[in-house]
Amino acid sequence: MRIYLAGPDVFLPDATAMAAAKKKICDRHGAVGVFPTDPVEDAAADAAATRFLEISLRNEAHIRGCDGLIANLTPFRGPSADAGTIYELGLMRGLGRPIAGYTNDARDFAARTREILGASARETAAGWTDGEGLSLEDFGCHDNLMIDGGILAAGGVFVARDLPPTLRWSDLQGFEACVVALMRGSATGY
Amino acid sequence: MRIYLAGPDVFLPDATAMAAAKKKICDRHGAVGVFPTDPVEDAAADAAATRFLEISLRNEAHIRGCDGLIANLTPFRGPSADAGTIYELGLMRGLGRPIAGYTNDARDFAARTREILGASARETAAGWTDGEGLSLEDFGCHDNLMIDGGILAAGGVFVARDLPPTLRWSDLQGFEACVVALMRGSATGY
Repeated sequence: MRIYLAGPDVFLPDATAMAAAKKKICDRHGAVGVFPTDPVEDAAADAAATRFLEISLRNEAHIRGCDGLIANLTPFRGPSADAGTIYELGLMRGLGRPIAGYTNDARDFAARTREILGASARETAAGWTDGEGLSLEDFGCHDNLMIDGGILAAGGVFVARDLPPTLRWSDLQGFEACVVALMRGSATGY
Repeated sequence: MRIYLAGPDVFLPDATAMAAAKKKICDRHGAVGVFPTDPVEDAAADAAATRFLEISLRNEAHIRGCDGLIANLTPFRGPSADAGTIYELGLMRGLGRPIAGYTNDARDFAARTREILGASARETAAGWTDGEGLSLEDFGCHDNLMIDGGILAAGGVFVARDLPPTLRWSDLQGFEACVVALMRGSATGY
């Protein structure tokens, strides 16, 4: 099983080490991990992957060539996961293949959003809103309900672990739980 | 052509009025707009759409039943678009159908991210990073490159207009440009 490793890990200063660590875990469970920055077969296309469209096309090609996807959905520069990672999760859902996600911040999405909004968040009779009057989701999810719901509907797992900020971008226990879940699903034919 | 109307518009205090306004524009151009909160055919399923999974399943069903999607990608509570909207955009891309997006904030993604990060953003020899050392994308895109790239690769448009904050959640000129683009593509068979 080839698994696409989606996440803001590509932005880490030690992204290469993170790619190697994730691939090692995949290998230990009999899977092949594919990191977004991995070269594609076509060397010419690979050489051109310096501009945004080429990078986007390479990542989409990797996703279409994989059998499943694991998304690092740890909140990134706001209440939700990284935008590119969410897009990739949706893309794999649209392709109808297994998806799984993990977050190293287990706080409830509504509580986390209120915390980030700070004093601009207001409680009204109809629930919480932001400073512009737009309402806050409050369903006990880890992120926007389309993310929690999409993973659940696909039969996947969304593993949430509460880690201190210093370990948020390095701990891979949640990731490994996703590999195990995808491989178990693969073995039982889900 | 049935067009799914993705966006954080569902969180607006006047979401019903926004749904009506968008549908009216679609109608004027010969399209049928489908708003996320529209009821589904199955009345029982509709009645149950109060919990997160039911809402998610209803929205996914709407997307699968549409011929195209227009996403309101105006930045939402952070540097990127709304998480649910991005997921839906990716899902429609995975289904291989036309997508388009608009934003009422035309600032460059990198500049906007730096502004939100404030003093924690740092310029290094290798480019800008956030306070945790994770790098910032800087490709002149409107959002994460997977979003700009995905829309472009699908042959769609990403319309960016710079509007004052007071008009950011109400102006529909960018939306209308997306309807025109999808209908033109539909007429020419793209």
